[in-house]
Amino acid sequence: MRTYLDCMVCFVRQGLDASRLLSDDEKVHEQVLREVLKEAATLDLTQTPPVMGQKIHQTIKRVLNNDDPYYEIKRKFTDFALGLEDKLQAKIDASDDKLLAAIKLSIAGNVIDFGVKSTIDEQEILQTIDDALNVDFDNGHIEQFKSHIKRADKILFLADNAGEIVFDKFLLKLMPLDKVTVAVKSQPIINDATIEDAQAAGLTEMVRVIASGSGAPGTVLEQCNREFLEEFDSADMIISKGQGNYETLSDVDRPIWFLLKAKCNVIAQHLNVPVGSFILLPNKGS
Amino acid sequence: MRTYLDCMVCFVRQGLDASRLLSDDEKVHEQVLREVLKEAATLDLTQTPPVMGQKIHQTIKRVLNNDDPYYEIKRKFTDFALGLEDKLQAKIDASDDKLLAAIKLSIAGNVIDFGVKSTIDEQEILQTIDDALNVDFDNGHIEQFKSHIKRADKILFLADNAGEIVFDKFLLKLMPLDKVTVAVKSQPIINDATIEDAQAAGLTEMVRVIASGSGAPGTVLEQCNREFLEEFDSADMIISKGQGNYETLSDVDRPIWFLLKAKCNVIAQHLNVPVGSFILLPNKGS
Repeated sequence: MRTYLDCMVCFVRQGLDASRLLSDDEKVHEQVLREVLKEAATLDLTQTPPVMGQKIHQTIKRVLNNDDPYYEIKRKFTDFALGLEDKLQAKIDASDDKLLAAIKLSIAGNVIDFGVKSTIDEQEILQTIDDALNVDFDNGHIEQFKSHIKRADKILFLADNAGEIVFDKFLLKLMPLDKVTVAVKSQPIINDATIEDAQAAGLTEMVRVIASGSGAPGTVLEQCNREFLEEFDSADMIISKGQGNYETLSDVDRPIWFLLKAKCNVIAQHLNVPVGSFILLPNKGS
Repeated sequence: MRTYLDCMVCFVRQGLDASRLLSDDEKVHEQVLREVLKEAATLDLTQTPPVMGQKIHQTIKRVLNNDDPYYEIKRKFTDFALGLEDKLQAKIDASDDKLLAAIKLSIAGNVIDFGVKSTIDEQEILQTIDDALNVDFDNGHIEQFKSHIKRADKILFLADNAGEIVFDKFLLKLMPLDKVTVAVKSQPIINDATIEDAQAAGLTEMVRVIASGSGAPGTVLEQCNREFLEEFDSADMIISKGQGNYETLSDVDRPIWFLLKAKCNVIAQHLNVPVGSFILLPNKGS
């Protein structure tokens, strides 16, 4: 997916919001904002939005002199999600359709995304979980998704954010884990999950986890390492979590399933759904 | 009032919104947006927001090759307001406190402002009129405002937008018109009223109207002409309509009354009121 003019406006707002979240110093906010404005002015619109997202957050890291400014936030939301784990597992166990309930929770976890907005609280997450479990999510693709899992020999799961990956565990547990590889980011970028976050979430204990090589808030294939690309090319099912992975892979001809919450206008229009929709969607290769 | 970092984000959005309102060509939208981003990156924050607003709309005029891109919009909202005039006059005539009702309608008219947002429809104006007439607007300054009008020898009324000036006529009619001068903009800027708009509104028939010399969407004193500055310096009551005039004059030590609808977060915070509030406020010199 290319970058839209509305994304440029959003980048500017994201730069200011993120700088305010991460620092109390208005001089820092101003410096970040001016640099984001400058970068946005010459942005190549044929690139995907996460490429610019990466630049914005490289600027923020440089100005803050901090390689992982979301470290505390990632830890906080991981701990919060882990605290919910037993209760949510019980809800899945009590469901008539366990896989459907796990899909819903995995998508609900996608609300923990500090790329789109900088104010996410625990109440919003609890509300999204409730909404997800109660939504009538019969989009015509559930059975196709289930049968794809059953026949797949190699499944690559593209993780999104710290905290969110705790919610993904319910879905992963219902899959043949010996056939699954989970990919996380190689460098800290916003609150996207890294290997360290996967360890904190207990994910590395249950499934093979690799780093993608990308430090963008999405999967920019040009940045990915050989290990990841071999998995990406050989997997016969790819499960892609979140907006950033959708933005970077929506035009890629691989058997990809996109699972996300459509959190902004541009994505919602691209998917032709209302903002806030829960999405389970195969691309043409699936 | 200085320019805040949030204003910079808003300028970028305004640039995109305005270019979309005025052209269907996405190349035009992109060119405007990139130039606004560039200008915002080096913006002097000690200047008032209308100085940047002027630059944005100079860019839009240049890209569109049109000196008055809001011409049709100004004419449309003038005609709409004129169509309501008799009905609203009857409401004022039926009011116990005619001046208070006229103040409310004048502030309600301030909703016709294409600087803050680019989607204003007739329904929103009618709703704002209803809200204004029904609001309990006892802010402790009404009596002071009335007595200031009574004792003033020279009143300067700083008009804001085309269409809005039709609503100002109710208030002006209740003032000693031989003591009043109305100032409008010298060049077209957004939908701010010019002499031509004042004529279309029937304002020039009832009161002396001058052009300020400023082509900013506010009153930037450095841009104003001698005739205006003489009025500004000698008036013993200045009535200032709208956000742009507030932004440019809030720190000026003259006997100014600000009448506006607080339409954005920055202004609302500066005034310490909720967004959407109707404001009648004297500055310290009043």
